[in-house]
Amino acid sequence: VIAQRALVTGADGFIGRALVHALRVGHDVIATDRPDGDIAEPSHLDRLFDEAGPFGLVFHLAAVVSGAAEADFDAGRRVNLDATLGLLDRCRAQARRGGPVVRFVHASSIAVFGTPLPARIDDATAPAPTLSYGTHKRVAELLIDDATRRGELDGRALRLSGVVVRPALPNGALSAFNSDVIGEPLAGREVECPVGADATIWLTSRRAAVGNLLRLADIDGTGIGAQRALTAPALAISVGEIVAALGRVDAAAPARVRYAPRPEIEAQFGRWPRDCSFARAHSLGLVGEASIDALIRDHLESTA
Amino acid sequence: VIAQRALVTGADGFIGRALVHALRVGHDVIATDRPDGDIAEPSHLDRLFDEAGPFGLVFHLAAVVSGAAEADFDAGRRVNLDATLGLLDRCRAQARRGGPVVRFVHASSIAVFGTPLPARIDDATAPAPTLSYGTHKRVAELLIDDATRRGELDGRALRLSGVVVRPALPNGALSAFNSDVIGEPLAGREVECPVGADATIWLTSRRAAVGNLLRLADIDGTGIGAQRALTAPALAISVGEIVAALGRVDAAAPARVRYAPRPEIEAQFGRWPRDCSFARAHSLGLVGEASIDALIRDHLESTA
Repeated sequence: VIAQRALVTGADGFIGRALVHALRVGHDVIATDRPDGDIAEPSHLDRLFDEAGPFGLVFHLAAVVSGAAEADFDAGRRVNLDATLGLLDRCRAQARRGGPVVRFVHASSIAVFGTPLPARIDDATAPAPTLSYGTHKRVAELLIDDATRRGELDGRALRLSGVVVRPALPNGALSAFNSDVIGEPLAGREVECPVGADATIWLTSRRAAVGNLLRLADIDGTGIGAQRALTAPALAISVGEIVAALGRVDAAAPARVRYAPRPEIEAQFGRWPRDCSFARAHSLGLVGEASIDALIRDHLESTA
Repeated sequence: VIAQRALVTGADGFIGRALVHALRVGHDVIATDRPDGDIAEPSHLDRLFDEAGPFGLVFHLAAVVSGAAEADFDAGRRVNLDATLGLLDRCRAQARRGGPVVRFVHASSIAVFGTPLPARIDDATAPAPTLSYGTHKRVAELLIDDATRRGELDGRALRLSGVVVRPALPNGALSAFNSDVIGEPLAGREVECPVGADATIWLTSRRAAVGNLLRLADIDGTGIGAQRALTAPALAISVGEIVAALGRVDAAAPARVRYAPRPEIEAQFGRWPRDCSFARAHSLGLVGEASIDALIRDHLESTA
């Protein structure tokens, strides 16, 4: 039995590293990230598919994230739109040549929802992005649905919320405070939070994100339906509640958070509704973290 | 006073010809269609913008329509996606070089809504296309919203329903029966209708479509809001009601319609809900035809 060959883009990222690690069990993994070549470059994509392919499975994680894509539209468009189009084209071409129809798992984002954020978000909520990052993610979702409908792809997209606890290295995400407000005080460092204590955010842990991406790759496509994008189960919680939870493991931690709310950050990143449902994802066996305390405990164990 | 320079793509089409005719009053119109060059070809776009530009206004009507885009995905993607991306890039580049921010009017389509069609469609209905044509139209809407938000475009998109009465020449639209079921019996010819008498369709006349595109180009963008795509007012009517209206102008016409329903055509083209609202469009002064009788009378006058 030959292991299924899987391509992972953005393989050196926070999610990518953990996904590749888990995926190596049972898969022949081709991991690619910037040092290997530019994923938006047609020649790099051709080389991947011609030399390392064919692929039965593709996890597309490579992205220029929210803040970086806002600051440099061309860079964001190149990775988030052009590279995705190029990757989908190669998958289609493989299928048209009689190769495997790729099971394509796209790391989408809750940034497909824009400001003003809806009072409730569920599986019927219409995406209306207000960031270039979210726009390109939504475009990818639509193209994946269409290629799947045409039988040239077996796509699925998972809308991830803030995946925590990322290292406090700037990757350009405007939602980086989600991680910093947890990781920094617990590491004994002060942190400035660009949203107020009453701001509500949606969180997921890396283990839940990776588990859900893997689960999504395992599901038979016919069970997902025609719209292949799912919102991943998230923990909807206020920053004040997070800070209180920090205090339950380190009484000195809450005082290390200083609030300096910025309205434009609050509008997109601090107004996620508590009234939310992830019914489609749950029905497919995807899961979220049970509590902020479980998430923090896991973070402390993984960094211990 | 120099007239505003306007570019019209798809200028030789059914809508394009009438739009260019109306637009020449007060505008310096650059009309382009296939004989002039391929709108998906970068060199043609460069030539248009470098030699005929800068443009204050762009009407983007060029498209490979529903059936043709389903039959030849690459041809559809090339015009409906690649050419639109190229056109938006040129508009952005013009603005970045200090030229005018283009008022960009995109001919979108109700094909952004897919099957199963919703029981009600209004301004809150989430687009979920199930044709490649509709997918690429929705992608264009999203990119227009984003470019507009970034201040590099002043975009607007009008989702047109079946524009009647087109000449009975195949342009590849799966909705061509909308026109044929009106035009052919009145011309004394028999017609086969691929949906039943109880099928409900959405119609607009060419004069309403052109009037609404021009009206949309005149409106100050700030009044439209962040989501620049509007569903154009349409007449929601059953095929049986249309055929009955034919009988009111020619008693022999109804007998020339033969019903041969095809389920896949009915699902996308014959299940448009009567429960619909075009409130945003109406609030901006866009209008639909008052009745099928008014639409038929206009058709007879324009072809007399």
